[in-house]
Amino acid sequence: MVSSSSANHPLKPVSQLHYELLTLGDELLLGLTPNSHLTYIGAQLGRRGVLLRRSVTITDEADAIARQFRESWAQADVIITTGGLGPTCDDRTREVLAEVLGQALVYDAAIEQAIIERFARLGKKMTANNLKQAFRFERGEVLANPNGTAPGLWVEQDGKVLCMLPGPPNELQPMLTEQVIPRLAERGLLASREAYLQLRTAGIGESMLEIRLEPILQRHQEALSVAFCAHHGHVDCRLSSPTGALSEAQLLALGRECEQLLGEDFVTFGQDSIAKVCGEALRAQEKTLAVAETSTSGLLAQAFGDLCGAGKFFAGGVICCSNDSKMQLLDVPECLMMQHGAVSAECAVALATGAAEKLGADYALAITGFGGKCGGPKENPAGMIFVALYSPHGVWSKSLNFPGPRAVVNVRAVNTALDWLRRELMRAAREQSSPQRRSGVMQ
Amino acid sequence: MVSSSSANHPLKPVSQLHYELLTLGDELLLGLTPNSHLTYIGAQLGRRGVLLRRSVTITDEADAIARQFRESWAQADVIITTGGLGPTCDDRTREVLAEVLGQALVYDAAIEQAIIERFARLGKKMTANNLKQAFRFERGEVLANPNGTAPGLWVEQDGKVLCMLPGPPNELQPMLTEQVIPRLAERGLLASREAYLQLRTAGIGESMLEIRLEPILQRHQEALSVAFCAHHGHVDCRLSSPTGALSEAQLLALGRECEQLLGEDFVTFGQDSIAKVCGEALRAQEKTLAVAETSTSGLLAQAFGDLCGAGKFFAGGVICCSNDSKMQLLDVPECLMMQHGAVSAECAVALATGAAEKLGADYALAITGFGGKCGGPKENPAGMIFVALYSPHGVWSKSLNFPGPRAVVNVRAVNTALDWLRRELMRAAREQSSPQRRSGVMQ
Repeated sequence: MVSSSSANHPLKPVSQLHYELLTLGDELLLGLTPNSHLTYIGAQLGRRGVLLRRSVTITDEADAIARQFRESWAQADVIITTGGLGPTCDDRTREVLAEVLGQALVYDAAIEQAIIERFARLGKKMTANNLKQAFRFERGEVLANPNGTAPGLWVEQDGKVLCMLPGPPNELQPMLTEQVIPRLAERGLLASREAYLQLRTAGIGESMLEIRLEPILQRHQEALSVAFCAHHGHVDCRLSSPTGALSEAQLLALGRECEQLLGEDFVTFGQDSIAKVCGEALRAQEKTLAVAETSTSGLLAQAFGDLCGAGKFFAGGVICCSNDSKMQLLDVPECLMMQHGAVSAECAVALATGAAEKLGADYALAITGFGGKCGGPKENPAGMIFVALYSPHGVWSKSLNFPGPRAVVNVRAVNTALDWLRRELMRAAREQSSPQRRSGVMQ
Repeated sequence: MVSSSSANHPLKPVSQLHYELLTLGDELLLGLTPNSHLTYIGAQLGRRGVLLRRSVTITDEADAIARQFRESWAQADVIITTGGLGPTCDDRTREVLAEVLGQALVYDAAIEQAIIERFARLGKKMTANNLKQAFRFERGEVLANPNGTAPGLWVEQDGKVLCMLPGPPNELQPMLTEQVIPRLAERGLLASREAYLQLRTAGIGESMLEIRLEPILQRHQEALSVAFCAHHGHVDCRLSSPTGALSEAQLLALGRECEQLLGEDFVTFGQDSIAKVCGEALRAQEKTLAVAETSTSGLLAQAFGDLCGAGKFFAGGVICCSNDSKMQLLDVPECLMMQHGAVSAECAVALATGAAEKLGADYALAITGFGGKCGGPKENPAGMIFVALYSPHGVWSKSLNFPGPRAVVNVRAVNTALDWLRRELMRAAREQSSPQRRSGVMQ
């Protein structure tokens, strides 16, 4: 297939290839479920140097699918579809696309066997309509689905590739990374490895980052492509060399230069979250962390929830909504809250100290605020938040005041707190190597 | 405009209208940010009886925008675009669409004034490129943007509507609900009020729900449209009468019948989360709730994080990752964990009891488990979770075992725990009205 494919298909550079994503389902168009397929597939392709040209979401209705697919197939080099492969009557994609491509669907005994075995393994009764999923294109291949019943389908025709993936993310995602990406790479339809180098930064805005990196990046203007992406609390910078003028090693060297220049504002190369970077530093230094929250109600603790082995460094957290709970769980003195209020630098410090002591942790982060929207008293406006960091060297507090809706304010508060911890952990690591620099701490 | 619009535009029933959403931005196609616009706009239109026919995401590249818009404009009755209205050079949507529609862009002094005032209010310096946002279509209207600099734009032409919205969600969302939806309703382009009745259920699967409701729903087969949507932990059923054969009152009466039939499995009419329903019941009964978690690491507490006034009923929570923290914060006996393990019914009960006592709450939920993926010892496989419910009448525990990835397992565990609390609160409410039914509790 490869040769025939490349034969009909004059090989363009990957960045020139026209990829389209076609997601099906009224539940997406009704906003009942977010389109996680675009987010996931777009990111995976992007990391291999492909920018999706278009992502189209349409209804399950057969005519709409046929019309859209005809139009897309005419322009695209690669089309990935998601959903519509299931057993029920509104899963029509397989049939409709086969007709547009002038292919017959053939019953595949191997698929049937896999489906029957899956139901047996799960001890479930298989209804007859499940065998609808055993049909494949007569001139096509099958992508095994270890996590579900509907296999993926792969067709190469007219010098183009059609790849049909099942809708459930836990079936689609491994199928994409383990089967589809390698197949596309084999055929030269995407880069054989990561196509860019990502620098993750924190503590500086997008435009400031651009200005600071300019002296390094402008030296390679023509060879280099630079993209910035701001998130709530961190900014990513992606370096790539679309023409291939710069080797991977040269890109990395450039990245290292940027790292040096950015100092503490540099978080990591790649995709790791600030929480993950903190977690690794804590494990390396054999230290533990505790957290205490009010307005963020568990969001700070959640940052560590997805990290494997978090038990090694994350001692736990406390969410205190009432003053009683602050006293009961973390020994915050009532008089302190009476005098300074529950949303104050003093209370934040008491929460962090209490969390560290009660949970026997070396470090602690505390966030207390009104969290916006629901608001607080006038003189302490919604959005006003106090963060405290407890460390073996002392405890500090600072106030934050972010505009915007409650959800955004909370995310930014959590990321600001985590970044503060990250910087302190970096300092601690540096001291271990050169103790005399201790004086530089927290200036 | 209305008449001219309806003149060129033979009025079809709303459900027949062709709506398209056009979202712009490489960051969406690269999966750097999820397409929250589709989720939000699709849901808002759906609630007014409109099913988006198509949602297209394309790059910021001018030719691509022009090509797509031409194609969409030819088929659609209403097109909503998001993004590309900003001040930077890659914000080209306004210019490109004006050219396709054969309209000139005119400089609007009122917009300029609003932008200048906004910068002054925020005490920021305004760069010249911001005034690019002061241009509007010569034959079009302006949608004020109280939350940002770029106003929305509204054009009625060829008997169609083009509505251009700014990209940031906190600017787009209020503009849509407060200005766009009412304008579309005025012109008869969507239903003037909620187009369907949603029943939210928990504790039964989609297919079982369909079977149980069949006797009621089949009585109105031709007049009624029924849609089911399963989420992790609850299933929604939407009743509507596209032809208008059933009045709002008749739909509601039908809904009440379903509510009766479903009993405790009925959660609420509308969109409220199970956590919100629990919160309202707690407030009504003047009771408070505390939570304790291990593997879900704050996810349970987060369920109450977005609820305004949660402080009234949510006492707080504890996240205990280590056995020490369970002992320190919640007085879980060490011997209990030694004997039964930290992931056990006994430990779950101790966690719930400890949370209720320490936080002085009437009710408490506890979740303890390995949370999947990162796994646990063989005899207690990943995904095995214990939930405990503490109430004024006693404390109970049950074990859950969900398949699937860690994130899904955690969400389902949290929703199962919340639904258990909800059922207990419903029982408590019923008893207040008829105490003799006490015997029926927790059988």
